[in-house]
Amino acid sequence: MEFSSKLIEQAVGHFASLPGVGKKSALRYVLHLIKQENQEIINFADVLKALKTDLKYCKNCHTISDNDICEVCSNPLRNQQLVCVVQDYRDVMAIENTGLYKGVYHVLGGLISPMEGIGPSNLTIDSLISKVSTQQITEIILALNATMEGETTSFFIFRKLATYNVTLSAIARGIAVGDELEYTDEVTLGRSIVNRVPYNNSLAR
Amino acid sequence: MEFSSKLIEQAVGHFASLPGVGKKSALRYVLHLIKQENQEIINFADVLKALKTDLKYCKNCHTISDNDICEVCSNPLRNQQLVCVVQDYRDVMAIENTGLYKGVYHVLGGLISPMEGIGPSNLTIDSLISKVSTQQITEIILALNATMEGETTSFFIFRKLATYNVTLSAIARGIAVGDELEYTDEVTLGRSIVNRVPYNNSLAR
Repeated sequence: MEFSSKLIEQAVGHFASLPGVGKKSALRYVLHLIKQENQEIINFADVLKALKTDLKYCKNCHTISDNDICEVCSNPLRNQQLVCVVQDYRDVMAIENTGLYKGVYHVLGGLISPMEGIGPSNLTIDSLISKVSTQQITEIILALNATMEGETTSFFIFRKLATYNVTLSAIARGIAVGDELEYTDEVTLGRSIVNRVPYNNSLAR
Repeated sequence: MEFSSKLIEQAVGHFASLPGVGKKSALRYVLHLIKQENQEIINFADVLKALKTDLKYCKNCHTISDNDICEVCSNPLRNQQLVCVVQDYRDVMAIENTGLYKGVYHVLGGLISPMEGIGPSNLTIDSLISKVSTQQITEIILALNATMEGETTSFFIFRKLATYNVTLSAIARGIAVGDELEYTDEVTLGRSIVNRVPYNNSLAR
C-alpha cells in the first residue's frame, strides 16, 4: 500500500502494529480520527503517553490498579490464602466477571515462551515463590491457557513450588457449558472423563 | 466491562471509539501497547497529534498530500481536463491501484447525509463547481458509493453542474469480474444489462 503522505503512512504503521489490525483497518482508523475534534485527538495521545508513565501495578498481585494495593488484594472479604495464578489483567477481569472466585490473584505478566524470548525471569514467578515462602498460603490455582506456553509455565511453577507446603491445583478442562459431546475434540473429552467430578446440586444449577 | 484502573478505562474508551473496534479488542490493543518500548508509545502519540496539526491537503483536489499540490495534480502526464469525484482519500488510493485512470481527482471529504448532519456545505462541492466554471474541464466522473448517501450526493452534483458545458458520467455498476450471474442481485444484474457496452478486445483481456 502506497500513501501520498508520510504522516498518514506513519500513523497507519502504528495502528497496523496492534494485534490483529491490518493496513486497511489502520487507514480506516486514521481517516476516522482526522475527522474528530482537535481536543479528542490530543486527549487520545495524552492517554497513550500516560499508559507508560502513570500506570500503576498492585505491589502484591501485579495486576493493573490505580492504587498501590489493588481492590481485590485490599478487600478483607477475599481469602488471602487462596491465590489464582493468571497470565494477565484480562484473565483477572474474566474470572472476576464469573463472580464465583473469592480468593486473590497473582498476575505473571505473560507466559514462558522461548520463541518470543520470554523466560521465567521476565515474569513475576520469583515474586510468587517469595509470596509462598513468606505468607500463609494454602492453595495455588494455576489458571493459564491450555497452550504449549501455558502448560510449560504451569509445569515450571509446579516444579518450583514442589518443595513448599502448598496445595497446587489447575482449573478444570472439559466441555464448555452448552456444548455438545459429539462435536468436542478428543483431548478435551478425554480430560473431562478422566477428571470427572462427584455429581451434586451445585453442578445442576 | 469494569476496569480496575481509570487510565485503562480511558485508553480503552479511545480505542473503542474507532470504527469497528469493540471494548474487548480495545483492551487487547491497550495491553499490547503497555508492553512496548517507551519511545514507541511516545512516537505513536506524537503522530496522532500531528494528524491534526501537520496534515496537509492538496489545494486543487483536496486529497491528503505532503505538498500544496499533490503528485497526481502536479503530474504533467495526467489529463487535467478529466476529473473523478470521490468520497475520500481511500477511494483515490483504490482507483490509483487499478493503474487505469489517467485523469485527476476531486475529493469531496464525505457524502451528503442528513442523518449524520452532513450537508453540501460540509463537503468540497463549491470548490468543484468553481473548478468547473473557471478551468477547462471536459468530463466529470462521479465515482461515489452505490448507497443512499452516494446516490443523493451524485444527484446533487448532477443538478448543480447541469448548466455547465461539461460531460457528466458515473462509474459502471455491474457484475464483478469473476462473479457468477446466478448469484448476482437483481438490481446489479438489471443495471449491467441496461448499461451493456459494445464488446471489444479490451474487455477480453
